[in-house]
Amino acid sequence: MALRALKSLLLLVFFLLVPHSISSCHPLDPLTPAEINSIRRTVEHSQLGSNRKLTFHYVGLDDPDKPGLLSWLSNHTKTPPPRRAFVTARLDKQIHNIIVDISDNTIISDRIYGGYGYPIPTSEEEAAANALPFSYMPFLQSAKKRKLDIAKVVCETFLVGWFGERKEKRVAKIRCFYRHGTDNIYMRPLQGVLVTVDLDEIVILGFKDRIRTPMPKAEGTDYRASKQRPPFAPRTNGMTIVQPDGPSFTIDGHMIRWANWAFHLGFDARVGPIISLASIYDVDKDKYRSVLYKGYLSELYVPYMDVSDEWYYRTFFDAGEHGLGQCAVPLEPTRDCPSNAVFIDGYVAGQSGNSIKLSNIFCVFERSAGDIMWRHTETEIPGEKVREVRADVSLVVRMVTVIGNYDNVLDWEFKQSGSIKVMVGLTGVLEVKGVPYTHTNQIRENVHGTLLAENTIGVNHDHFFTYYLDLDIDGPDNSFIKAKMQTVRVMKGRNTSTPRKSYWKVVTETAKTEADARLKPSLEPADLLVVNPNKMTKVGNHIGYRLIGGSQATSILSDDDYPQILGAYTKYELMVTPYNRSEKWAPGEFVHQSHGDDTLAVWTLRNRSIENRDIVLWYTVGFHHIPYQEDFPVMPTLSGGFVLRPSNFFDNNPVLKVLPSKPVHWPNCTAHV
Amino acid sequence: MALRALKSLLLLVFFLLVPHSISSCHPLDPLTPAEINSIRRTVEHSQLGSNRKLTFHYVGLDDPDKPGLLSWLSNHTKTPPPRRAFVTARLDKQIHNIIVDISDNTIISDRIYGGYGYPIPTSEEEAAANALPFSYMPFLQSAKKRKLDIAKVVCETFLVGWFGERKEKRVAKIRCFYRHGTDNIYMRPLQGVLVTVDLDEIVILGFKDRIRTPMPKAEGTDYRASKQRPPFAPRTNGMTIVQPDGPSFTIDGHMIRWANWAFHLGFDARVGPIISLASIYDVDKDKYRSVLYKGYLSELYVPYMDVSDEWYYRTFFDAGEHGLGQCAVPLEPTRDCPSNAVFIDGYVAGQSGNSIKLSNIFCVFERSAGDIMWRHTETEIPGEKVREVRADVSLVVRMVTVIGNYDNVLDWEFKQSGSIKVMVGLTGVLEVKGVPYTHTNQIRENVHGTLLAENTIGVNHDHFFTYYLDLDIDGPDNSFIKAKMQTVRVMKGRNTSTPRKSYWKVVTETAKTEADARLKPSLEPADLLVVNPNKMTKVGNHIGYRLIGGSQATSILSDDDYPQILGAYTKYELMVTPYNRSEKWAPGEFVHQSHGDDTLAVWTLRNRSIENRDIVLWYTVGFHHIPYQEDFPVMPTLSGGFVLRPSNFFDNNPVLKVLPSKPVHWPNCTAHV
Repeated sequence: MALRALKSLLLLVFFLLVPHSISSCHPLDPLTPAEINSIRRTVEHSQLGSNRKLTFHYVGLDDPDKPGLLSWLSNHTKTPPPRRAFVTARLDKQIHNIIVDISDNTIISDRIYGGYGYPIPTSEEEAAANALPFSYMPFLQSAKKRKLDIAKVVCETFLVGWFGERKEKRVAKIRCFYRHGTDNIYMRPLQGVLVTVDLDEIVILGFKDRIRTPMPKAEGTDYRASKQRPPFAPRTNGMTIVQPDGPSFTIDGHMIRWANWAFHLGFDARVGPIISLASIYDVDKDKYRSVLYKGYLSELYVPYMDVSDEWYYRTFFDAGEHGLGQCAVPLEPTRDCPSNAVFIDGYVAGQSGNSIKLSNIFCVFERSAGDIMWRHTETEIPGEKVREVRADVSLVVRMVTVIGNYDNVLDWEFKQSGSIKVMVGLTGVLEVKGVPYTHTNQIRENVHGTLLAENTIGVNHDHFFTYYLDLDIDGPDNSFIKAKMQTVRVMKGRNTSTPRKSYWKVVTETAKTEADARLKPSLEPADLLVVNPNKMTKVGNHIGYRLIGGSQATSILSDDDYPQILGAYTKYELMVTPYNRSEKWAPGEFVHQSHGDDTLAVWTLRNRSIENRDIVLWYTVGFHHIPYQEDFPVMPTLSGGFVLRPSNFFDNNPVLKVLPSKPVHWPNCTAHV
Repeated sequence: MALRALKSLLLLVFFLLVPHSISSCHPLDPLTPAEINSIRRTVEHSQLGSNRKLTFHYVGLDDPDKPGLLSWLSNHTKTPPPRRAFVTARLDKQIHNIIVDISDNTIISDRIYGGYGYPIPTSEEEAAANALPFSYMPFLQSAKKRKLDIAKVVCETFLVGWFGERKEKRVAKIRCFYRHGTDNIYMRPLQGVLVTVDLDEIVILGFKDRIRTPMPKAEGTDYRASKQRPPFAPRTNGMTIVQPDGPSFTIDGHMIRWANWAFHLGFDARVGPIISLASIYDVDKDKYRSVLYKGYLSELYVPYMDVSDEWYYRTFFDAGEHGLGQCAVPLEPTRDCPSNAVFIDGYVAGQSGNSIKLSNIFCVFERSAGDIMWRHTETEIPGEKVREVRADVSLVVRMVTVIGNYDNVLDWEFKQSGSIKVMVGLTGVLEVKGVPYTHTNQIRENVHGTLLAENTIGVNHDHFFTYYLDLDIDGPDNSFIKAKMQTVRVMKGRNTSTPRKSYWKVVTETAKTEADARLKPSLEPADLLVVNPNKMTKVGNHIGYRLIGGSQATSILSDDDYPQILGAYTKYELMVTPYNRSEKWAPGEFVHQSHGDDTLAVWTLRNRSIENRDIVLWYTVGFHHIPYQEDFPVMPTLSGGFVLRPSNFFDNNPVLKVLPSKPVHWPNCTAHV
């Protein structure tokens, strides 16, 4: 009884304290540990909490209403939008979508989701599922037949996708690996052994031991420095960045300010970093102007190209099935990020709803890569030398999310010129399958990949990073424009005496509806622009930003292939939708075993108007990945991305008046290497 | 007489000394100042020298015979290939292509070129042509009518291209600019005033003053820091790179060695940097393996999209018409290149044949941009934390060439992973035309560009950087392969029970002849590979490198448009030819006023065999450039390029055994900012 009284007292004290901490919050700040724990209590103390099988699958900030937030931003004396949490919990095999008011610890709504699909499994569920094979006799026999030391077997949960089943349990496949002699577990799969489990009941539903191939060797697979033997590759001398006056950015809560940029860095268990309210200071107008209301990696779709029993279901949607944010890993100073980086933690909720700290998952640093921001040497004025150069310095926000084998480096880079460069880096370890072959000349079948080492096939696959980009170019109402370059044949006679026979002119097409803005890769050259049709530069050009793409691979799977029904949006490099608060994730809300009836591609079939509206761009950075031997046993980073570049946003070059930094001299240094 | 005797004596001393300096040369080293001057004397002392109108237009190293060089490289005890110079000189309006043996100062051959086209004009010719308007009354009257201070008028030579004329003089157009109130001369053109000159006779052939438009304002155009007035853009704190143990690269003559790379950095008046003999150390094989026999920017074609009298001929071939190397500008420490850069000079020959020093035109530096070379965090082994990260460090070789208004940043970046990243950066100043308009709402005609400021149109244009890449992947005989991703429909029944309906498989196509390898931009996804079909990795994959493109804009001008006849190769992203010592420059040898009968596109019509041959790739990095107001008055760098990435070149990841650099600590530093 005394304990319960103490608990109640502590709870009271806590509730009295919470409003204070909330009041200093920005409405977009991610949930604090205290808030997460308070939300857990609110839910547990509701009627939902009476049942002990309640599991938390997602706890995050419920997006404040956009007009309300914009109104508050324009006038801070108003009360901020209410701070609410969005919770996905499961109870008696039902999905509850719960909205919690954080300020008064009440449940605003509790809707049971009746559609297809399941939320991200909890790590406890995965751990329990991963343990099942070890008490399952057929599995143990399979390991024994392979002469494996069972203590060195590691199992992992792979979600199964949806392949036309009418009704189904919540299912996963358990795949196991052999870490004997290596910690690069992915290089030693128990090929052919496949355990199917019920994730709700945590029981084995099926078992197969279909094929047996030689276990790929451990030798040469471990990537740790401590495991390497000479000869070593040449080593370069150490180098570091020195900033005697410290960094030029400030982090105030979650608001980051650097040079002419200000933005909010949020964090979400599902999508990881969320850049909001990115705005740039316009020196001439003496004000910050809005560029990006919100941007994040909405989904990362990775379908594999082997359709055998062991592989066909590997068509991962990493954000919706695993959570890019909750799979973020601690970044290592001086290696993952340079020595001048600042690190930031994140918080997610565990299965019980308690907050879990993820340390150092973000780093923020100024990059001085040795590039040139702008320059000109004037060589044509006799007797005069004119040279003016500005070195490029930018600000990088980085998170690395590790979904099993792959490490995805997610960078947002802000440039003083107004550009935002969004880059993804693919590194980590390939998914491989064991085969009997030790040389390509033995292969007579389609192995769906590359022989990377003896008995090891790196399987062909794709990576599609689909970004949500709610650009608000100088205000919410924007239009999407294709500025096409069209060849013009010069007609002889009349007013022209030109000997030229052609040129290209710019023909701009404004997308009126969603169908106009579904962009497949095209041979038609065009600049892609988001403009504010209600605002002009002094000389009358529409205020705009340009999207410069890269790595424009799109899916070439059949439209009727099951994973592709969910991932239909990856047929397009770009889609544009009118802003809709509920349209956040390209493959829909509950991805695991979803039937694909609530996806970006489906939403756009309504063909809504997108002209002079608050619009959202969905841009896919794609890679078709044929593995090569260099990707073994760990893959050198492969990069791709896109740039948002101001294009008639400013009246002139915004970095003209960036004075060069004073040079930094270090004459009195003693090196301590 | 005494003077002549002294001269002879000095000459003798010189000749005695030269062989010593030559003997220490690498056969690919660019010509030294002493060699250039010696070549001048050799030519002048020949029968050519009797005529005083001899002008030198090009003096460079005559490529050593490739088999001879490779043979010498494999066995240094042999005598090196003879060191020869290639000279283009004009005499009595005839072009002489002269081969000089540098070791014994003899002329090996002297061929008169009888075809179309002219060499790069000398700077003396341009200066003389630029001076003509100032003593030409109609021009002076035009300036007076415009109320210009003639002392502030600057004129510049624009080459004219070929537009179907049968026979023609060597001609240029002189365009003039007004530098009153600004040193950004390009922003103030004397629109409508056009002087045509004979470059041989240095006389005016024609004059037009066709249209008069308001002179764009000087205000806001000067880009120099000293000319800027507050408010200034926010300034970032200084930062610098510190390498306590110094750089990790060595420069031995022109051989650069860094980490696992070794390559030769040459320099040429026409194409600028030449990377030769780039080879990478294979730790497992304990030897250097060849990657790139020779690579350089073969041509930079910049056609403008205004066909009026004043603009139609602006279809520049910057390498062949102006010389990328001789237009290289000195690089500014800490701004053009970081503080850890090393600078290198270059030498060209002037009109008289005398050597001219170009200071600090190259910089070489180690880049530590804060990126990740490779990493993995293993999160799936219960109870164990595995994390291994390598920071990326690379080596950059940079040159900036300024062709009038544009500054082109040319980077070659070598990565320890075996990748070579070739980047171009576009910065500098736009070419604009004067118009009467101060706002877009006044414009009723096609202005062929963007209104950047009052009275100022930035004219639409393209940039096509065409790289010569003589890859020798582990030896000279290579093949070009397209590894196409092709969708496969899964057929029901028989051996498959898969619920998947599709996947993609890799179908490799080896290009047999040049026609097979003419690559237009395509919607068909494919990896582009150069492989050595005679060598395999241990497990039997063909040794290869992959070309990963970017900025794949190709020309959309009509095939029959005159400039496009020369630039026909820019219809293709990539072409492949068998190595031919004489095929060096994509638009042919003499570009100015060429009729386009000796171009890359013409050579490939022979449709030669390219399978398992010594092949050359010609890759075009293209930009369609619609100017935006941010490009005014100086343009923030716009970048593009491509990557050569080892793909089954190594048996496994070559940077697995790169141990992390020791961290650099600077605890005892005193900052001097």
